[in-house]
Amino acid sequence: MNAQELALQAKQASRVLALATTQQKNAALSAMAQAVRTAAKDLFAANKLDLQAAEQAVKEGKMKPSLFARLKLDENKLKAVAAGMEDLMHLPDPVGRTLAYTEMAPGLTLQKVSCPLGVLLVIFEARPDVLPQIAALAVKSGNAVILKGGKEALHTNEAFLKVLTGALNSLPGGWPQGALSLVHSRQDAAELLKQDAYIDLVIPRGSNALVQYVKENTSIPVLGHADGVCHIYIAPSAPAALAIKVCVDAKTQYPAACNAVETLLVDAAWPQENVNALLQALAKAGVKCHALEAQKQRFTGCEYAKEINWHTEYGALELSLLTVSGVQEAAAHINRYGSHHTDAVLTQDEKEADYFLSAVDSAGVYHNASTRFADGYRYGFGAEVGISTAKTHARGPVGLEGLTIYKYRLRGQGQIVGDFVGPNAQAFTHKNLLQEDKK
Amino acid sequence: MNAQELALQAKQASRVLALATTQQKNAALSAMAQAVRTAAKDLFAANKLDLQAAEQAVKEGKMKPSLFARLKLDENKLKAVAAGMEDLMHLPDPVGRTLAYTEMAPGLTLQKVSCPLGVLLVIFEARPDVLPQIAALAVKSGNAVILKGGKEALHTNEAFLKVLTGALNSLPGGWPQGALSLVHSRQDAAELLKQDAYIDLVIPRGSNALVQYVKENTSIPVLGHADGVCHIYIAPSAPAALAIKVCVDAKTQYPAACNAVETLLVDAAWPQENVNALLQALAKAGVKCHALEAQKQRFTGCEYAKEINWHTEYGALELSLLTVSGVQEAAAHINRYGSHHTDAVLTQDEKEADYFLSAVDSAGVYHNASTRFADGYRYGFGAEVGISTAKTHARGPVGLEGLTIYKYRLRGQGQIVGDFVGPNAQAFTHKNLLQEDKK
Repeated sequence: MNAQELALQAKQASRVLALATTQQKNAALSAMAQAVRTAAKDLFAANKLDLQAAEQAVKEGKMKPSLFARLKLDENKLKAVAAGMEDLMHLPDPVGRTLAYTEMAPGLTLQKVSCPLGVLLVIFEARPDVLPQIAALAVKSGNAVILKGGKEALHTNEAFLKVLTGALNSLPGGWPQGALSLVHSRQDAAELLKQDAYIDLVIPRGSNALVQYVKENTSIPVLGHADGVCHIYIAPSAPAALAIKVCVDAKTQYPAACNAVETLLVDAAWPQENVNALLQALAKAGVKCHALEAQKQRFTGCEYAKEINWHTEYGALELSLLTVSGVQEAAAHINRYGSHHTDAVLTQDEKEADYFLSAVDSAGVYHNASTRFADGYRYGFGAEVGISTAKTHARGPVGLEGLTIYKYRLRGQGQIVGDFVGPNAQAFTHKNLLQEDKK
Repeated sequence: MNAQELALQAKQASRVLALATTQQKNAALSAMAQAVRTAAKDLFAANKLDLQAAEQAVKEGKMKPSLFARLKLDENKLKAVAAGMEDLMHLPDPVGRTLAYTEMAPGLTLQKVSCPLGVLLVIFEARPDVLPQIAALAVKSGNAVILKGGKEALHTNEAFLKVLTGALNSLPGGWPQGALSLVHSRQDAAELLKQDAYIDLVIPRGSNALVQYVKENTSIPVLGHADGVCHIYIAPSAPAALAIKVCVDAKTQYPAACNAVETLLVDAAWPQENVNALLQALAKAGVKCHALEAQKQRFTGCEYAKEINWHTEYGALELSLLTVSGVQEAAAHINRYGSHHTDAVLTQDEKEADYFLSAVDSAGVYHNASTRFADGYRYGFGAEVGISTAKTHARGPVGLEGLTIYKYRLRGQGQIVGDFVGPNAQAFTHKNLLQEDKK
């Protein structure tokens, strides 16, 4: 089956999934979780094949050891996958929610109701637990999904697909063919990116390069983020203890995460003794700091350079430091050099905080908290598809809601537009029926 | 100024506009409306220049007479433009709405708040009232906008731009430079479509060809619709009088509109006498009907062909007729050949209607009403940017809300993620504060 046929089949499956009841979708999730637990041995065996190939690749210098570690499927990861599917069962159905309800005229009502997007294309790299997670999110949101996995995880992905489709096909009433499919090659991915007639959303999960490639090679809407260049601005009134605690957490709690801080903007008016204490704490936590030669006296014990690329995402125990004067300069720097992901201000001045939260154009704008909170689970969404730095559709951590859109259901008794124009025109009432219900 | 500089300037202006208060934005709208009324003579004079050139073009066969008519700015259009701006003043500010409000943990709150998109690029064809309308929508939604007009309306567009920027610059405190700008050439448009670093949304308003061109030549999200192939399915139980009334309105009330019906799907079980009465009514209204030769006996008095292209959008007093058997076949036909714009079912059977409204994958799904209701004003949105057949961001008629997105404001007291992991982890509370407020 070529890419176009695969996409068409997924579209046809999505027509059926759009009509699935909450009960049917939850039964599917339950069966999937059960099947994953039952098939643990097979899944580990398949994963072992990928690990053996990866071990060889690491030896030959063709794969980074960190990638090898991420590829490994263990008991804990498998338990988490099955538990995550069952968690999804308890989340409210994102489909069928009434978002607005209006009487347009007597006997003519307009209902804005959430519905699935249709067909998702998810392109992901080595991690073996992504496939079952995404498959479960697609089931709950009523979408068909085509998955493109990395070839490093080929056996693991194939094994998961077999287990999950087996579970879905064994449901009473079955599950539409093409609702869940998997491809491996770059050629397939390239062809799928052209299927804008059938695919409604692409979600790339992986490196900056992957996201950039996808954006440049498709006219299908893309949800995701390329960079995570997060900032913390330390304002004059920021207490030293608070600043140290938050900055160390934001950098060290998981340095490779997209929401880890990369640049500290330190106000010129923040006391020098606080700066020194912060630098000591960062050094103690193993963080290498970069500063401008011209700001050597302000930031002691750093690596210095004549110029620093303020777009740098270290993704490691490293960060850049810069002196700024005032919240306006801080916000301007962040809007210019940041990635619109998550940025924080540390201050005791509420007005300054309000300005920062309004002026900084990022998906997450934080006052006195670590940037590491940017995460769907922490936000309370229950499940996360990814974090979006786009400005349309969905921004920030994206849960099930980001996999839905809405349609307008208009119900009448034969009304025509001709009755609402001209000299004897009937008037629209535009009465909010949703508020009426709540009263 | 080249396209990149223009886009950068618009981005910088958008940073200021994002902070504008409701009062400031409404004052701008008031000044704009006033300026349009005051400058009526200049605007008509400029429009006359365009009309003279257009007259010549029509004579030479280079322009359709219908385009000439749309180009004309008259007293009524100008009044409507100014009144529309004042209407916008009374609509609620789409920016700064709290969409969700959660306690993540004691002293740590998450507020989802609406904010402007940033920079809009609107590419439109000849109609001279589009520029002031879009400028007003951009002001109210806090967005900067770059407009690309058709060269047929060059003088009128330039005159509107001069009047509107004059009004904005005369405001106390002024208005950011680059918040509203205009280009004319295709070359400029092509260069602007590459400015995905600065432009957040493209809205093409015009022909199918324009929308297709835009979609294929940008990685910026596009909002709009190429086609409007709307259907009405006449189910077995549809009363003849209702079907005739709705179908005639849907085709004839404004045949060139994107929400006019193009294909009638008539159930095989709908009585032949009803079919005959419908065809008579359509003929009387001047509608030319197309049917398959094989269905000659069912649909008398039509133009017949061996095959019909079911994707056809006539945009005129013409439509296609097809016999279908049951609501499932009707929905499948619409999902396959339609443009996901607006489609209606006429039936007395509630279950059949519910199936249609769920199964048909269109922005508007109607029961017993004319497809012509698909319009932002009729839906009660007050103002309309356009109608979207996309599946992401905004679907159907798009009002001010479609020009906004949201950001997450997290407010804490120095909380770090490290406190929420490990053996002594603090728990997230995820308490809905919005509902608490309402109680």
